[in-house]
Amino acid sequence: MRNVFHDELAGLVDTLVEMTHFAESAMSRATTALLDSDRALAESVIAADSRLDALERDLEERSLLLLARQQPVATDLRVVVTALRMASSLERMGDLARHVAKLTRLRHPGSVVPPEIRATILQMGQVAQRIVAKAGSVIASRDIAVAGEMEIDDDEMDRLHRAVFTFLQQHGQEVGTEVAVDLTLCSRYYERFADHAVSVARSVVFLVTGEHEVPRRDQLAG
Amino acid sequence: MRNVFHDELAGLVDTLVEMTHFAESAMSRATTALLDSDRALAESVIAADSRLDALERDLEERSLLLLARQQPVATDLRVVVTALRMASSLERMGDLARHVAKLTRLRHPGSVVPPEIRATILQMGQVAQRIVAKAGSVIASRDIAVAGEMEIDDDEMDRLHRAVFTFLQQHGQEVGTEVAVDLTLCSRYYERFADHAVSVARSVVFLVTGEHEVPRRDQLAG
Repeated sequence: MRNVFHDELAGLVDTLVEMTHFAESAMSRATTALLDSDRALAESVIAADSRLDALERDLEERSLLLLARQQPVATDLRVVVTALRMASSLERMGDLARHVAKLTRLRHPGSVVPPEIRATILQMGQVAQRIVAKAGSVIASRDIAVAGEMEIDDDEMDRLHRAVFTFLQQHGQEVGTEVAVDLTLCSRYYERFADHAVSVARSVVFLVTGEHEVPRRDQLAG
Repeated sequence: MRNVFHDELAGLVDTLVEMTHFAESAMSRATTALLDSDRALAESVIAADSRLDALERDLEERSLLLLARQQPVATDLRVVVTALRMASSLERMGDLARHVAKLTRLRHPGSVVPPEIRATILQMGQVAQRIVAKAGSVIASRDIAVAGEMEIDDDEMDRLHRAVFTFLQQHGQEVGTEVAVDLTLCSRYYERFADHAVSVARSVVFLVTGEHEVPRRDQLAG
């Protein structure tokens, strides 16, 4: 029985890792579409999101079957329940990429991002891509050190989020209210995307260490 | 064994209903604090949020114990797993009320809300209060008709959310960028609050009917 359980659990873990790839691809393409005002690419991000929703629903059904058939207890039970929570975060990350793509579509052929803040948004996209890739690694390898790096990435995302607000405070009159509203939402989508990635990693850390706190990478480094 | 299971399940349901009361109180007080620029009230909302977090964690631990001890299958299993998901949404609703309170604190003694849009924000607060109260009813009574009403409330919230954007488009220059950014975030918090309430109700509907779609109240009425 234990082997069947662990085989099926490995299948859930594979699906979670696959979901991180989908979320990474979605936010990466959404960022490119946003910066290039590429409507077709934005449409493809919007259309692809149903795939991530389907993966979550599939994972939920398999988790319920696994719980019903194998009746795990203690740590094994907690792992399955945590997988459900992680899938929910990853599905939500796909929604956030879709929101970025929808803003792009709404303003096309105009651009959501004024040239002066383009580099900041590009960085937000890069941090988003990096942090979800690391979430995939943490799920696959249970490497706590990588989870610690992600906390630093999340700080970087928060810094960029604040930089967008500072830009808007200084240049709001020039760029106009529509851009201010769009950028505020857009920046919030990236920030939430990173929060969900961190939440996924923290769940893994809790499974491994029993602690809700993650040792930060800079603390590990000395 | 069945009776123990159903007693413990009833305890989880009670906790979920209690969580809706907390979320309702939090958003109601956060709205008052926002409209009155009442810093002390905002602080109390921020401080109280840890209670909702604790309720979620407690519900999770009890759910895991229930799964481990009673080993439910089929519908009973799905009910417990769904309770976990609902608790997560309710905890998030508390976070959103806390975000509204934090905006209030940040701008105190100034106000986040210009007089011209005050009535709209007041309505958002009222819809938020109503929709979470109904979520509590749906959890307690499994009344699908109330879940249908909530879909209408959610449409109303979306309409108010769009009204905030329309106001900002028309009066952005007058109110300034800081207010535009604050109102955009604030409006988004209310809109997400309602989304989470609807998600809670939909989960109950799925448990009762096996359908992800909720019959809308206006359709029920004929």
